[in-house]
Amino acid sequence: MKAYLDCYPCFFRQALKTMRLITQDEKKILEVLNQISLTLPKLSFEATPTEIGRQVYKIISEKTGVIDPYKAVKKKYIDQALSFYSDLKKLINSSQDRLMTAIRLAIAGNIIDFGSDADFDLEEDIQKILIQDLAVDHSQQFYDALEKTESILYLGDNAGETVFDRLLIEELPKPVIYAVRSKPVINDATWEDAVSSGLNKVAEIVSSGCDAPGIVLKLCSSEFLEIFRSAALIISKGQGNYEGLSEEKGSIFFLLKAKCSVIAHDIGVKEGSIVLMKANG
Amino acid sequence: MKAYLDCYPCFFRQALKTMRLITQDEKKILEVLNQISLTLPKLSFEATPTEIGRQVYKIISEKTGVIDPYKAVKKKYIDQALSFYSDLKKLINSSQDRLMTAIRLAIAGNIIDFGSDADFDLEEDIQKILIQDLAVDHSQQFYDALEKTESILYLGDNAGETVFDRLLIEELPKPVIYAVRSKPVINDATWEDAVSSGLNKVAEIVSSGCDAPGIVLKLCSSEFLEIFRSAALIISKGQGNYEGLSEEKGSIFFLLKAKCSVIAHDIGVKEGSIVLMKANG
Repeated sequence: MKAYLDCYPCFFRQALKTMRLITQDEKKILEVLNQISLTLPKLSFEATPTEIGRQVYKIISEKTGVIDPYKAVKKKYIDQALSFYSDLKKLINSSQDRLMTAIRLAIAGNIIDFGSDADFDLEEDIQKILIQDLAVDHSQQFYDALEKTESILYLGDNAGETVFDRLLIEELPKPVIYAVRSKPVINDATWEDAVSSGLNKVAEIVSSGCDAPGIVLKLCSSEFLEIFRSAALIISKGQGNYEGLSEEKGSIFFLLKAKCSVIAHDIGVKEGSIVLMKANG
Repeated sequence: MKAYLDCYPCFFRQALKTMRLITQDEKKILEVLNQISLTLPKLSFEATPTEIGRQVYKIISEKTGVIDPYKAVKKKYIDQALSFYSDLKKLINSSQDRLMTAIRLAIAGNIIDFGSDADFDLEEDIQKILIQDLAVDHSQQFYDALEKTESILYLGDNAGETVFDRLLIEELPKPVIYAVRSKPVINDATWEDAVSSGLNKVAEIVSSGCDAPGIVLKLCSSEFLEIFRSAALIISKGQGNYEGLSEEKGSIFFLLKAKCSVIAHDIGVKEGSIVLMKANG
């Protein structure tokens, strides 16, 4: 998915939000916003938002020397999600359709996103998403693919959401490879975050080799691309991965909440919708 | 009030909104956003948002040749407000406190603002504001000043809101000079808009000489500054005028709805609050 013009103000909004985590020095923040302002016109808007976002976050790191501004935020949400784990497990255990409940919980976890503009209340949003209709529901195709495949490639998104991914992975009947970002970017899950969430107990964790806030295939490592190209079933979590992969074909299933108008428009659903959608399906 | 860092993304949001009124050509819009992006770092953030906004809208006019992108929008809202006029007049006629009802209606009219990010539903918002508490209520000081003064300077804000201003002016017991922008900027009221709203029947209309989306004294004409400096009572409508005058002293009363977090924070009220507030009072 190419960047939309609406992404333009949003890059500044994201940069401001991130800079405020790093410093209270308004001059320093303005300096970084100005640097981004001078750089954006040089970038191609034919790129995906996640590629442009990567450049924006690079400027922030380079100008401030802070590699992981969301470190504390990520820890907080992993801890909060872990504190919900056993209750959510009970919910799955007592549900009539374990897999669908786990899928919905995995989507609910996708609200823990500091790249998007949407505010969230984790407990409240979980309850909503458990009963919300899927605006795109390719679950039957997903179940069919799940039956046929021998393994699953699961593309992680945000830290904290990782714990919800773990609950879904525990319901999946096939071995799972869980892909994380190669470096910290926004609150996206890295290797360390995946391990803190207990994903190492239920999946093989791999780095995508990509440090953008979403999978961008041309930035991924050759090792990861081999896994990606040979995967018979891919679960792609969240907006960033959707942005990078929306034009790919194959057995990719996007699992996300459309938190911004751009993504909602691109998918063709209302903002706030939840989807389980097959790529080009 | 100096610009806040939160204004930075907002300038791009406003520019995008305005460009979409002018053209559907995405390349042209991107070109203008890029031009703004290259220009913003050269501007001082010690300026008020309305001064920076003025530069942003200048770039739009210069790059597109379109002087008044909100022309149709302004006409639409003046017409809609005029269609409400007689019902609102009846409301004032039947109210226990005519002046306060007219003040509240004048604040309600302030929601017709295309510079701010807030969406509005004119009919619904009027009903809300008629019963909403004033978060800052200097009405007693206002009534005292009203009694003492021989005339009133009324600083207009948006087209359409002008009709609501007229309803308030009809309740004011002293002659009114109504100030408009010197040129079109966003949906702010110009001379023509004031006349279309019938303000010429109830006030003397003057141009401020300023083409920013809010009064900036150093950009006003000497004729207007004379009126301003000698005014014993000034009613200042809306956010743009507040931005330019918030640090002024004197008998200025700000009448507005705080539609964005920056203005709300600066005043010290919650977003969405309505205020009748004396300058430095």
